[in-house]
Amino acid sequence: MRDDARPPANDPFREADDAARELARRLLASAPHGALAVLDPLDGHPLASRVAVALDVDGAPLLLLSSLSSHTAALAADPRCSLLVGEPGAGDPLAHPRLAVSGRAVRLDRTTPAHAHARARWLERHPQARTYVDFGDFGFWRLEPQRGLLNGGFARAFRLGAADLRAA
Amino acid sequence: MRDDARPPANDPFREADDAARELARRLLASAPHGALAVLDPLDGHPLASRVAVALDVDGAPLLLLSSLSSHTAALAADPRCSLLVGEPGAGDPLAHPRLAVSGRAVRLDRTTPAHAHARARWLERHPQARTYVDFGDFGFWRLEPQRGLLNGGFARAFRLGAADLRAA
Repeated sequence: MRDDARPPANDPFREADDAARELARRLLASAPHGALAVLDPLDGHPLASRVAVALDVDGAPLLLLSSLSSHTAALAADPRCSLLVGEPGAGDPLAHPRLAVSGRAVRLDRTTPAHAHARARWLERHPQARTYVDFGDFGFWRLEPQRGLLNGGFARAFRLGAADLRAA
Repeated sequence: MRDDARPPANDPFREADDAARELARRLLASAPHGALAVLDPLDGHPLASRVAVALDVDGAPLLLLSSLSSHTAALAADPRCSLLVGEPGAGDPLAHPRLAVSGRAVRLDRTTPAHAHARARWLERHPQARTYVDFGDFGFWRLEPQRGLLNGGFARAFRLGAADLRAA
């Protein structure tokens, strides 16, 4: 067990290879939701919250956020964020792969083709959102990925760049 | 659907009541894992990652972290963090309750009774961790809760204070 359970000494992160890129894209494409880390605009404290997730054609995560929620106020003040996807199955939660995508969130203006495109992608992934997607206090955001950390289970951690996170 | 799906206008967060406190404690007590938001020590960027979770007797979350992981370096530089617990079931992921506990993480020194206590609590909750709990590169941390945001599903959001998060 010891060899499996303990990461290698020194830098535990490897450079991404094809298998890592494929796993990262699979985790993103299959995630109905994730955990979003943002900065509290009051004091810069990190804040974690749940968000629903869809994926844009180029691999960028899309978020539909209520303007009343704490993460939306945070992103409006500082767009830096990190989205964790990949749900654990049975057994040790740390043995299951997960990916954190870090970057900046950009709000999509309601009158733009980008918004119409995101709305269509969203409803394909989350048909139940049809009842509130057009409410005035909901808005679409696109997370522009800058880097990622992929953890494929114990002792299999990778650093990814923006290009690694782009859909092939 | 509209009344259920949209939060009330103005401040959507209510003060905690007994039902909210009870739900928060239940979410924490039943969470085998959560998403931890920390600050990247390089540039202050928020960073989300998965952590396994156990609960101390007073309701404070316990974390067993590898010194090689990115969140551990982050907490050593700035102990502020936020832990999201509460796994969504079937259907809309935002309809399921979740809790973000924010506070400071304190590393438990290996030679102290607090460490021995945390280790015992941990193995009760995560017996499979017995294979690596004593590795030199793993360490216990305690999240000292300062505040919480509880989302009980659409339109049921509560602010909690440290006292609300303390085990009864």
